[in-house]
Amino acid sequence: MTDRQLHLGVILTGAGGPGRPKTWLYDDLPLDSSVNVDWYIELSQLAEKGKLDLVFIVDSQFITPNSPPHYLNRLEPFTLLAALAVSTKNIGLVGTATTSYNDPFNLARRFASLDNISHGRAGWNVVTSGDSGTAGNYGRDEHYDYDTRYGRAHEAIEVIQGLWDSYEDDAFPRDRATGQFFDPSKQHALNHEGTYFPKVVGPLNIQRSEQGWPVIFQAGDSDQGRDLGAALGEGIFTHGESFEKTKAFRTDLRSRAEAKGRDADSVIILPGVRFFIGDTDEEARALEQRANDMNWDFDRAQAEFGRAFGWHDFSQYDPEAPFPDVREIATLAWKTQADEVTDTALREGLTLRQTVERFAAPRRGHFVGTAQHVADLIEEWFTGEATDGFNIYVEQPAQFRRFVEEVVPILQQKGIFRTEYEASTLRGNLGLPIPANRYTAAREASREHAAIS
Amino acid sequence: MTDRQLHLGVILTGAGGPGRPKTWLYDDLPLDSSVNVDWYIELSQLAEKGKLDLVFIVDSQFITPNSPPHYLNRLEPFTLLAALAVSTKNIGLVGTATTSYNDPFNLARRFASLDNISHGRAGWNVVTSGDSGTAGNYGRDEHYDYDTRYGRAHEAIEVIQGLWDSYEDDAFPRDRATGQFFDPSKQHALNHEGTYFPKVVGPLNIQRSEQGWPVIFQAGDSDQGRDLGAALGEGIFTHGESFEKTKAFRTDLRSRAEAKGRDADSVIILPGVRFFIGDTDEEARALEQRANDMNWDFDRAQAEFGRAFGWHDFSQYDPEAPFPDVREIATLAWKTQADEVTDTALREGLTLRQTVERFAAPRRGHFVGTAQHVADLIEEWFTGEATDGFNIYVEQPAQFRRFVEEVVPILQQKGIFRTEYEASTLRGNLGLPIPANRYTAAREASREHAAIS
Repeated sequence: MTDRQLHLGVILTGAGGPGRPKTWLYDDLPLDSSVNVDWYIELSQLAEKGKLDLVFIVDSQFITPNSPPHYLNRLEPFTLLAALAVSTKNIGLVGTATTSYNDPFNLARRFASLDNISHGRAGWNVVTSGDSGTAGNYGRDEHYDYDTRYGRAHEAIEVIQGLWDSYEDDAFPRDRATGQFFDPSKQHALNHEGTYFPKVVGPLNIQRSEQGWPVIFQAGDSDQGRDLGAALGEGIFTHGESFEKTKAFRTDLRSRAEAKGRDADSVIILPGVRFFIGDTDEEARALEQRANDMNWDFDRAQAEFGRAFGWHDFSQYDPEAPFPDVREIATLAWKTQADEVTDTALREGLTLRQTVERFAAPRRGHFVGTAQHVADLIEEWFTGEATDGFNIYVEQPAQFRRFVEEVVPILQQKGIFRTEYEASTLRGNLGLPIPANRYTAAREASREHAAIS
Repeated sequence: MTDRQLHLGVILTGAGGPGRPKTWLYDDLPLDSSVNVDWYIELSQLAEKGKLDLVFIVDSQFITPNSPPHYLNRLEPFTLLAALAVSTKNIGLVGTATTSYNDPFNLARRFASLDNISHGRAGWNVVTSGDSGTAGNYGRDEHYDYDTRYGRAHEAIEVIQGLWDSYEDDAFPRDRATGQFFDPSKQHALNHEGTYFPKVVGPLNIQRSEQGWPVIFQAGDSDQGRDLGAALGEGIFTHGESFEKTKAFRTDLRSRAEAKGRDADSVIILPGVRFFIGDTDEEARALEQRANDMNWDFDRAQAEFGRAFGWHDFSQYDPEAPFPDVREIATLAWKTQADEVTDTALREGLTLRQTVERFAAPRRGHFVGTAQHVADLIEEWFTGEATDGFNIYVEQPAQFRRFVEEVVPILQQKGIFRTEYEASTLRGNLGLPIPANRYTAAREASREHAAIS
């Protein structure tokens, strides 16, 4: 595995994500960052200068007055990513889209269009929507239950990949000499009949891109989430809490993928991490401390903490009393997280305040130090096979610039990160295969079979 | 009305729209024009050089192997328009989206995002989808009936405009001195409960743009279509068959709008037309003749002719026998059109072949001649109040370039077309008012009322 290469993404959000409500106060950020397309373009061009694999746009469709600043007011991923596609050349463009509140036909079209506009750089982060309130924005009284959400996600991905194959790669001869624009025998209806999507006929009205299909990303951490990732995910976003936990997650995902008959190397694990870089390790720690202090606000943290429990209102309880087990009465929006929080609090006898502090307070991170120190840590996690790379949270553009200008060159010297893009497509840069068109493959297989028999 | 100004749009499609299957043969077009974002960017920049009001991206979600070349394989409007938004500065960006197969919350977000990315240049062409086959791509056995389609459209527009007002314009103080990012009293849930969309809670997670809301365009020609346009449309696309018919349409639409209590001047009529420009009128006519001959193919035209009848297959009938009245057995996808065709054929005793020729063959157009001649005709239609402007079909980039470089300057000399953009927003250039936020307006009205009483 000497040619194993690190993969790096950057999570582009406006200022003020969950747990970081005050980051908009940094004065090197535009005040309207979350809706400022020029800011997104500037950061994605900086990421491309650093030869990063991809930019990642998160999403959600439900807000309250208490939502984090970035959630309140944000650009929609497809429109934003298309704007980035024509402002960059090589970097991958990954967007979150939910299978709970989108028609597969529409998702298939938009991702295929983004993939054509970017010449093969699109990726889809498949989510099922945790916030139960989202249902009300889409005409439903209640959010889909957990099994339905994951059932829809599985089926939607398969439908969408089927639609992406509507045209074989040689369906459009476009030959002015012969007058043949199109070969109808290379167009295929899907005729899907299923459980959650009873009927999707097709064909899709757009060709495949240079990379065949967009890359499938996934982030669920529950048992169903991991199964979905192992079955269909090609990039997996996860937490970067510690070397051991991340390594255990990667090992689990790889063995689940192998159990499903997949090559484990076709599943790339990317934990999300914050980097703080200083001229000295002390300076970096001070930067982190300042950020953590600035963002800490118990009431706000307690409100956001309720999100995993379906925005359960914990302010109704005494913060100094033992943590209340509300799993019976709250809708568990992020089930794994709600379970972990509750189990820990009960086991250790924590109060509500202690529990919120434990799980919602900004904590000291791992990747804090000089550029050399941070690069060494990255190498350690990578060569120790805890991870295949990282997905970087950007809070301060100045810090991300230091990452690109100081950390990346060290990683390149270490021989674990590219000095030039290997390819013009996201699949090419991630080392993932281009999926063969199913109809072309079937025809070739039957031809081969005929030749043998 | 001396300051009345002409408005011009350009319909950007790849080569090979309905009735024009062979335009991809022009050798000044890229072969993959319908999926080539660079070609769309080049043409929209050319349109902007000509100070045109807007580019217009049409759409559909259903194809068969017999669909016109552009329909077979096309970019999706939101992703395409966002790419154009960051490639242009002043021109309006209008996209077609159906209310039959999209959730209002998703449409509201995507148009608002496009409107923010373009700083107030977005427009939405509201359609209800004519092709009954579209249903099968969205899990439905049958397409919505006509009344449901228009009922959904009305309600969807009102829901979406309500969602666009989720934030008052001063909802985000973003004041680093006071630490106030957001004023929660300026965020408003919609809490819509309706007929076709029983529940849409809101609020939307994006602010209004510089023009308040995207401009609403509409193109339906049936009675319901005209009523929708008169009630909620700000730009109306229609046919440019003759001065008299277009003038009658405009007069009807304006009086319907006035009957609904609207200012008729806030409804802008834009017929779609083809221009052929030559050094002499004869040369222009020859160019048109060549295009018409090239695109004429009875079998193909007959197949496309069936679209208004829900893709009814007319090849099963004897083309030399009297035109069959199939209104009882076919699904009327474009009802007004199917009725007009059938009534005319029966009244005049036409054969099937004659009917297809009459309605589906490329015909001689009005706007054919030298640049001066074409500009004079435009002036005649405009000052004669048959129209407020035109929406231009582009078949040959070279012809569109002549329009921009030769016809536009004459229109400018005549004083009926701008020499510079009046505004940076589409509303500003169309002379349409910025809609007041309903919550701000209500608060101001109640304050005024309190002051008076």
